[in-house]
Formats: sequence, C-alpha cells, structure tokens
Amino acid sequence: MTGWLAIAGLGPGDDRLVTPEVSAALAEATDVVGYIPYVARVAPRPGLTLHPSDNRVELDRARAALEMAAAGHRVVVVSSGDPGVFAMASAVFEALEGRPDWQALDIRVLPGITAMLAAAAAAGAPLGHDFCCINLSDNLKPWAVIETRLRHAARAGFAMAFYNPRSASRPEGFAKALATLREECGPDRLVTFARAVSTPDQRIETVTLAEATPEMADMRTVVILGNSATRRVGRFVYSPRSVR
Amino acid sequence: MTGWLAIAGLGPGDDRLVTPEVSAALAEATDVVGYIPYVARVAPRPGLTLHPSDNRVELDRARAALEMAAAGHRVVVVSSGDPGVFAMASAVFEALEGRPDWQALDIRVLPGITAMLAAAAAAGAPLGHDFCCINLSDNLKPWAVIETRLRHAARAGFAMAFYNPRSASRPEGFAKALATLREECGPDRLVTFARAVSTPDQRIETVTLAEATPEMADMRTVVILGNSATRRVGRFVYSPRSVR
Repeated sequence: MTGWLAIAGLGPGDDRLVTPEVSAALAEATDVVGYIPYVARVAPRPGLTLHPSDNRVELDRARAALEMAAAGHRVVVVSSGDPGVFAMASAVFEALEGRPDWQALDIRVLPGITAMLAAAAAAGAPLGHDFCCINLSDNLKPWAVIETRLRHAARAGFAMAFYNPRSASRPEGFAKALATLREECGPDRLVTFARAVSTPDQRIETVTLAEATPEMADMRTVVILGNSATRRVGRFVYSPRSVR
Repeated sequence: MTGWLAIAGLGPGDDRLVTPEVSAALAEATDVVGYIPYVARVAPRPGLTLHPSDNRVELDRARAALEMAAAGHRVVVVSSGDPGVFAMASAVFEALEGRPDWQALDIRVLPGITAMLAAAAAAGAPLGHDFCCINLSDNLKPWAVIETRLRHAARAGFAMAFYNPRSASRPEGFAKALATLREECGPDRLVTFARAVSTPDQRIETVTLAEATPEMADMRTVVILGNSATRRVGRFVYSPRSVR
C-alpha cells in the first residue's frame, strides 16, 4: 500500500462548504488526524481510524501523521477553514524540516473555505478591496509585533480580518487591539463580529469602532474591520471596488 | 415565483473545488450571469438561461442580475474564486445603493476557494502566517496607493498575495511593484508565481526576488511573496507559524 498525506480544510462548519476534493480524500483515507472538534466533523466508518488530539500539540500531531503516511497509511490531517491559514499546513511543513525521507512522501494541501471569507460572505463584501489577515493570538508572536502590524495595516488602508481575537487566558489582547485601531482609524470605522459562521449558532453583528467592545468576540469569532470607504447598504456591509 | 440572487464563487478552476452550496444554487437557478469565461464553466440545461458578458461591465451586469431577481428569476452571479475577493459581490452591493426595492430581495453571497488559497496550497503554505492581499490592477485605484500599500505591508512583515499582477495594457505596473518590493524586502525574499491554479495549465514556480522578472506573471497568475521567515522545505515553500 502506498501511503499519502493530505492536509485538508473542512471549511467553517457547514457541510455544504466542504469541497468535493476534500470529501474524496476523506472517503479514501485510512486515518484522520486533527484537533478534537475538527475530527468530530468526520463521520466514522469501517476502515477509518480517527486520531483526535488536543489543541497546541500541532507539531506532535504533524509528526504522527507523517509517520503513518511513511508507513503506508492514507492520512488526512484536518483543519477547520483552510489548512494554510493559521492551521495545520505550516506545522506539517515545519515537521518536514531535516527529514528528507518524509519530504519524498506524496503530500498535498487541499484548500478550504477559510473563516474570514465565509464571514465576509455572510456580512456582504467587507473584504471586496485590498485587505490583510492577522492572527491576534500572542501565543506564537510578541504583542509588539501585532501592534506594529495593526498600525501599518491601518496606514496602508487595508480592511482587516482578525483570527483568534480573544481567549479566556488572554482577554486583554483584543481590548488593546481595539484601542490601537480606534486611534488609527477613528470611531466611525465599521467592524463586523462574525461568530460561528455557517453553523446553527451563527451571529453576525456590525457596529462602529466606537461601539465595539472586547466582549463581542470570543474564540469562535472572526472580526472584520472595514477600510475607510466600507459602508452599509440595506442589511449588508461592503467595501467598494474603487479608491477615489 | 419568488426570485432570489446568489453571488457565487466557482473556485479557481477545478470542479472539485466548487462547493456543494454553489452547485446546489446553480442547480436551482433560472439564470446565470457573469464574465464570459466564468459563465462558460456552467453546464447548459433546459430551463437555464446563460447571460455571459464582457469584462469591465461589472456594474451593468450587477444591475441586470438584480432586475431579473426582482422580476422573480432565480439568478446566480458567478465569479471565479471567491465572489467577495476582487470579484462581483462588491459590484452587486454598489448597485444596491439608493435602491431600497432591490435591498429587500433575497440576496446571498456564497463563498468560494479564492485563487491565493489554492495557489498557496499548491506551493505549500506561504500564507501560513499574517498576510495581505492586494489587487495590483490600477484600473480602480491610483498607482501611488498601491506603492504605499506595498511599503506598509513589507514593514508590517506580512506575506503578500497579489491579484491581477500584469496585463498587456499596463505591463509596467508589475515591474514597478517588484522594484519596490526588492527595495523593502531585499533580494533573497521568496516569491511564488502560480499560474492557472488547479487547471490543466497549472504552473507553480518559486524564485527569489532577485530572480523574479515581470514576464513571469500574466493575468492568470497569482503571485505570493513570502515574509522574512518564509523558506523552502523539499519541493514546498512555507511560512512558519511563529515569529521569533
């Protein structure tokens, strides 16, 4: 049996947002590896072994998946959203460093609908012009880097999508981010809080930066800040295509 | 008959990257509206009218689609990739301005796999850390805005994805962008040219900024510039999850 490894994105939650390419890989897999809630989205079947693991063990998980593929298994590493956006693809490539044997394996990345694009679609089109995408978690980078990025992004005129805005363990980070953004962008800039996008718990709320509070976000929320031209039309929010 | 409008993303080209949500909308549609090559990707069937139109008539196309939905048609406006990323969603919302009658319609945006995510997946994971996404076309914004954005993005430490890097009508823009990026990021920064991603014509090439030439890109190319930590591992290129 020839093993392979697919690093696949399950999209934000709704099964209708899982690509046929990912569904096909899951149908052929012998093993599915990933964070507990993502593996729980894969239906069990005979011949398929599920390997759920806890958060923050990404590198161990990547190595375990590569070991299995090297041993001839057909392995899918699952991420929510897209595997290349703050998810498992980088961890797998990090695990490949210094391992030419693993580098020779059949490894594919299968893209998925990342949370910010599903959130933008649910809200309208706030990312319809140039934008950036920032992980607000300071687990893997110092806060000073995040603040510098926010200021440059504001001065560049980007709309911004924020992943991991807020967790119980570091509730103060997002409050600091909002303060920085208010300073750079003013009180009237529109900001959309998109929680649990595409699931039955979905909630989309657009307010101004003046009205935004840290409590509006949790770890299931993607936050999208508009650019200076982002506006409401009816129940939607969108960024125009032109810069005047 | 109750009309509706879906603004749908067909993904970058491969049918296995079209979401089931989008396929379902197309199966229920009476009318499909969009740029000629994108409408050509929808299979004709009895009861479905295809409305292909030329490039650069986005607003007229959006209005025509809204007129049909208001008249009771089930209309899908198709874009390549994701409709919210430099595509038709913003044009439809622009067409809604000042038209409360149209704003009351059933309008949904159906996300798709945008080109940069498919390109990143084909290359490895170059967008695995904070990144930005810039449309290099200066049809809808002055070049000075593009240059300012490139400089801020470089100083923020973002990886960067570039859409519409080069066209026959303005070949000099991308050369200027490369010069600016060399100045800001140095000659060794990795840059991936991803042409016709997920189609039979796909070609992925990663070089350094010193080696990059404007001719490596055309209008079917998405260009991804790594951040300062982006590196090769085996045949892949990826951005590590951590900032040291």
